[in-house]
Amino acid sequence: MAEIAFLGTGIMGVQMARRLAQAGHKVRAWNRSRDKAARLAEFGATIADTPAEAARDAEFLICMLSDGPTCDDVLLNQGAAAALAKDGIVIVMSSIPVDTAQAEAKACAALGKHYIDAPVSGGEAGARDGTLAIMAGGDTAEIARAKPLFEIMGRVTHVGPAGMGSLAKLCNQMIVANTIATVAEALLLAKRGGADPAAVRQAIIGGFADSTILRMHGERILKGDFKPGGPAKHQLKDCRTAIATAERAGLDLPVSALVRQLYEDMVAHGDGEVDHSGLYRELERRNGIG
Amino acid sequence: MAEIAFLGTGIMGVQMARRLAQAGHKVRAWNRSRDKAARLAEFGATIADTPAEAARDAEFLICMLSDGPTCDDVLLNQGAAAALAKDGIVIVMSSIPVDTAQAEAKACAALGKHYIDAPVSGGEAGARDGTLAIMAGGDTAEIARAKPLFEIMGRVTHVGPAGMGSLAKLCNQMIVANTIATVAEALLLAKRGGADPAAVRQAIIGGFADSTILRMHGERILKGDFKPGGPAKHQLKDCRTAIATAERAGLDLPVSALVRQLYEDMVAHGDGEVDHSGLYRELERRNGIG
Repeated sequence: MAEIAFLGTGIMGVQMARRLAQAGHKVRAWNRSRDKAARLAEFGATIADTPAEAARDAEFLICMLSDGPTCDDVLLNQGAAAALAKDGIVIVMSSIPVDTAQAEAKACAALGKHYIDAPVSGGEAGARDGTLAIMAGGDTAEIARAKPLFEIMGRVTHVGPAGMGSLAKLCNQMIVANTIATVAEALLLAKRGGADPAAVRQAIIGGFADSTILRMHGERILKGDFKPGGPAKHQLKDCRTAIATAERAGLDLPVSALVRQLYEDMVAHGDGEVDHSGLYRELERRNGIG
Repeated sequence: MAEIAFLGTGIMGVQMARRLAQAGHKVRAWNRSRDKAARLAEFGATIADTPAEAARDAEFLICMLSDGPTCDDVLLNQGAAAALAKDGIVIVMSSIPVDTAQAEAKACAALGKHYIDAPVSGGEAGARDGTLAIMAGGDTAEIARAKPLFEIMGRVTHVGPAGMGSLAKLCNQMIVANTIATVAEALLLAKRGGADPAAVRQAIIGGFADSTILRMHGERILKGDFKPGGPAKHQLKDCRTAIATAERAGLDLPVSALVRQLYEDMVAHGDGEVDHSGLYRELERRNGIG
């Protein structure tokens, strides 16, 4: 059984850390608000006072903090990465920009530590049930070492060198945003054109137009239930990061750029806290409806 | 068992007519090239010399001809609709514009006949196996009368009054086009950003970004296999019809309008006969790649 430092035990992190502890690993958890980590004691985890204390001589450090700057601070400024055992692996499972992950990988290498960026998709339910989609960037050998841990949390795919897990996550978020916009436009056309949009959705499920977004977010759109879920402001952040990443790669991605603008409009019109499927409302607003 | 005129026995029509005949219905088939209808004789269908002869005193007329003008000509100019039994139902399963379907419904009503537009999704395999998604527009009572026939061909959903089956099909095609563009942009970003695009696709299948297009067309994009399938020129025709329909409804649908333009570019650059997933190549061209 491995010694694992687990940093960041929020809504998803606490579930992931619990599964690792219940599988018999020696989990040392740290969270900025200690009470969120304390819940893990009953599953056999120990609670650390600082990130470096959690990481001391551990083989693995899993980071599920809120964003890139927080990961940077905890791993590098607060000395968590340096505290790991020789050949220790830092695994950042937060969603962070590609260039942040690449810079962290370099900084860890300078400390003699390995680095994997392995962001996830699947939400709280996926974290709880161990069914997360895990997109891992890093060296093949290190990902193989970490695989027993990943398999407790979900299904891992090695998508390239360090940073590429974050790129895969970005592609995922970009597809989600564009597909929401697509489903919203189709359901709006169905409704305004005189069809029963709920029946149209039912009719096309199972065919070429089928998608998880049509099934899940399509239903929210039809019910007008835009309680988040994933708030539009987070979707917008992902869209901005995706377009900035595309621009650095010298790529013009016109559909994604347009959908980013639609989320800019949605947030500018005050719907930042609304579920991202509420882009339907932005389309109505654009068309003077409602 | 019902008497059914079946007009148009091309790739899909012949399979649909065969299933109806094999279920024991009295099918009278007509096709412009008679040999394509003649294949149905072995399943018990009779072959008619004209559309009106096929339709004479039948209870149902199913139309699976190539486009709206051909349906108009055969149903109205060549007298097939008028030849039906009293209370007969014309069922147009071709993909035709919404306003064509609405005009045909009116013309049939003037002849004392009922009308359902019921385009399908699912391709040749769906037609062969009786698993088509059938989007039906028309009166509830007539769709109920036709339901035993629809169930031999697939799964029917009543989406609204006459014309709305065609609108639902258009929504379906619009989602297909936009999702192809979305998947193409994501895979291009994955590749140019340094990830393994095939691994990225594998990683995100099963999550929120999942879609039939990601699974099927995503694989074609990765293999560079753009043999049609659904040629881009047909996708462009659908995109144009969708945008024209939206405009008539007073709707600005920005993502769909942009994707239509991308297909315009693709066809203008000589890729009209390439599979619609070849939009990936148009994105590469736009970015000076390949």
